[in-house]
Amino acid sequence: MLPESVLLQAREELLDWQGSGMSVMEMSHRGKEFVSIADQAESDLRSLLAIPEHYKVLFLQGGASAQFAMVPFNLLRGKSSADYINTGQWSKKAIAEARRFCSVNVAASSEEERFCTIPPENVWQLDQKAAYVHYTPNETIGGVEFHWIPETGDIPLVADMSSTLLSRPLDVNRYGLIYAGAQKNIGPAGLAIVIVREDLLGGVQSGAPTMYDYQTHADSGSMYNTPPTYSWYLAGLVFAWLKQQGGLAAMAAVNQRKAERLYTFIDTSDFYHNPVDPDCRSWMNLPFTLADANLDGRFLKEAAQAGLVTLKGHRSVGGMRASIYNAMPEDGVAALVEFMNDFEKRCA
Amino acid sequence: MLPESVLLQAREELLDWQGSGMSVMEMSHRGKEFVSIADQAESDLRSLLAIPEHYKVLFLQGGASAQFAMVPFNLLRGKSSADYINTGQWSKKAIAEARRFCSVNVAASSEEERFCTIPPENVWQLDQKAAYVHYTPNETIGGVEFHWIPETGDIPLVADMSSTLLSRPLDVNRYGLIYAGAQKNIGPAGLAIVIVREDLLGGVQSGAPTMYDYQTHADSGSMYNTPPTYSWYLAGLVFAWLKQQGGLAAMAAVNQRKAERLYTFIDTSDFYHNPVDPDCRSWMNLPFTLADANLDGRFLKEAAQAGLVTLKGHRSVGGMRASIYNAMPEDGVAALVEFMNDFEKRCA
Repeated sequence: MLPESVLLQAREELLDWQGSGMSVMEMSHRGKEFVSIADQAESDLRSLLAIPEHYKVLFLQGGASAQFAMVPFNLLRGKSSADYINTGQWSKKAIAEARRFCSVNVAASSEEERFCTIPPENVWQLDQKAAYVHYTPNETIGGVEFHWIPETGDIPLVADMSSTLLSRPLDVNRYGLIYAGAQKNIGPAGLAIVIVREDLLGGVQSGAPTMYDYQTHADSGSMYNTPPTYSWYLAGLVFAWLKQQGGLAAMAAVNQRKAERLYTFIDTSDFYHNPVDPDCRSWMNLPFTLADANLDGRFLKEAAQAGLVTLKGHRSVGGMRASIYNAMPEDGVAALVEFMNDFEKRCA
Repeated sequence: MLPESVLLQAREELLDWQGSGMSVMEMSHRGKEFVSIADQAESDLRSLLAIPEHYKVLFLQGGASAQFAMVPFNLLRGKSSADYINTGQWSKKAIAEARRFCSVNVAASSEEERFCTIPPENVWQLDQKAAYVHYTPNETIGGVEFHWIPETGDIPLVADMSSTLLSRPLDVNRYGLIYAGAQKNIGPAGLAIVIVREDLLGGVQSGAPTMYDYQTHADSGSMYNTPPTYSWYLAGLVFAWLKQQGGLAAMAAVNQRKAERLYTFIDTSDFYHNPVDPDCRSWMNLPFTLADANLDGRFLKEAAQAGLVTLKGHRSVGGMRASIYNAMPEDGVAALVEFMNDFEKRCA
C-alpha cells in the first residue's frame, strides 16, 4: 500500500516531470533531472532517520533476498562465522543463504516457541569471534517485532528492516548495516535500501560479483549501472510524504495507536485470537485466527465485500493477517475493527 | 523513451488497475491480479519473439550488469573458459566481469579499429573447449550492430541484447541464452529479461548467491522473491503496444527506415560524420560528429530549444549520439534531420 497522495503525485507527473517534458521513466540516470530526484530522496531519508555522515546510503536492486548474500560477502572480512538470531521465516531465509558462505551460529531462536516470542538478550549465545550479528527486527509472517535494539559491543549489528524501517525513529548509530526491501514502507518492489557504516566497506570476499560489492555502489552513488530510477523516484515521494506527516516520531505515534486499537479489540474478544507474546507484538503485521477456522472463507469474502482486502494469512501459517504499514490510515484500522466486531456478532 | 500510449495507459491505471481498486504497485506479487499481468506479459513476449517452448523466460532484477556475472556462474558448467567477442564498451564490461570467474578467450576484437567495425566471422579464433561464446549484438556507444548471427555449432551462443531486443524479429533457436536490461526497448530501468534454453539450467557453480542461479527463478516463475512488479507491468504494456504496431517485422521496417534516413543524410553531408563501417551500423544508436567540434555546444543548445534532447554523445567518446529506439517515432527522426540540415546551412 502506498499513500494516496503519493500515487496522485506520481500520476500527475507520469508523462511530464515538473515541466521537463519527460517521464521519470525516460530520464537518463546521469542527467541533471534524475540526479536531483536521487539526491533529494537520499537527503530526505537521511533527515528522517538522522543518518550520521559516516554512513553511506545505497539504492540497490535485488530486494532483501540479494542482501542475504551480500551481507556475508561483504561483512565477513576474513572471518569465518557470523551470529544470527532466528525469530521467524525471514530470519530462516537469511540464515540459509548465509550458510552458503560461512559458518552460522544461531545464537538464539524462538522456533520451539513457534516464533510467538523473541528470546531475551540474556539467553543469547553470542560468539566473540563472529564477524557480525544479524537479526530481523520485524517478522511479517509471525508478527513479532523487537521493541529494543540488541547490544553487541564491537561486533557490527546487522538488521533486515524490510518490514519496519520508517515506522518509527531509529538510532542508526547502533548498527553496522541496515537493509530493507522497499515494498513495505518505502515504495514499490524492485528497490532495496542499504545504510552501512563506512568503515565496513572495502573488504568484499573474492568470488563475489561486482554488483554484490557494496563498495561498487558506494563509490558510484548507486549509479554503477542504471539504477531502478522510477522506484527511487517513488521512494523519494514517500520520504517527502513522511516529512509532511511530521517525520518518524509522528508516524510512530500513529502506528502505535493503530496497533493498540487492533490488539486491544482482539484481546477483549473470545472470537479472535493473536498468539504473540504481548511484549513483542508487531506494529506492522498482525496475524490472528478465528475461533472457528471453518469461518475463514466467509470472513475473507465478506471482508473483501467491505473493501478490506489482502487479509489472508501467509500460506505457511494460514489464518488472517492485517498489514498495517505506514500507508494504512487510522480510518482503515477503524473500519477493520468495525467489520470484525460486526462479523463476530453475526457468527459467534 | 517509452511510447506515449503506454505512458497514457499507465497514468490511467495508476491508482486503480482495471477496477481492482489497487495500483499495480500495491498488488501482492502472488495475488491473482498481478499473476494475470505477469502471465500476459510473458505470453506476449513469447509471441513477439516466437520463443520456443524449451526456452524459459525470466524477469529479473539487477540489469545487464548482474548478467555479466550470472552468465559465467551458470553456464561454465564445469568448464574453465569462455569465448568473448569484443566490439565495444559493453563487450569490455562483460569480459572484465567474466574474468573474475573464468579464463576469457577474446576470440575477436575490433578495439584496434576503435570499435568502428565488427570482426568478420572468418577471423574469429573460437576455442572448441569454451563453455559458451558471448557477444554484444548492439553497442550503444560505438554504434555498431551485428546484422547477422554468429555460428558457434554446439557451443551455446550468449548475447547481451540490452539495446537491440525487440527492434526486429530474432531466431531465438540460434541462442543458448539471451539477456537484456529493460531500459532501452522494453520498459523502465530495474528489470532484466533472460531467455534461456532449458538444458542449460541447473549447473550453477558453488559459491553463487541463490539469486544468481537461473534455476531459482526458472523454478519459481521469477517469483522466488518479490519481483519488480511495476516494471514487469510496464514491460507488458510495451509488449502489447508492439503487437498493436504489427509485431517485430513491422518494427524492423520502421527502424530500418529511421536509421537509413539519418545515415543517408549524414553521408551526403560534409558537415556531419559517422565513423562506422556501413555494414555494421546500428539501427538503434547513431554516433556522429560535427566538422567543427567547437560548434558542439551550440548544436546541443539549439537542438534542445527545438525539443530534441539527450543528443550528447557518451562521455567516453564525445560528439553526438542519436538514440532511435522503438519508441522514437519516424516523425522524431524527420525532425532531427530537418534540424541538422538547418543547423548545417546556418553554420557550415
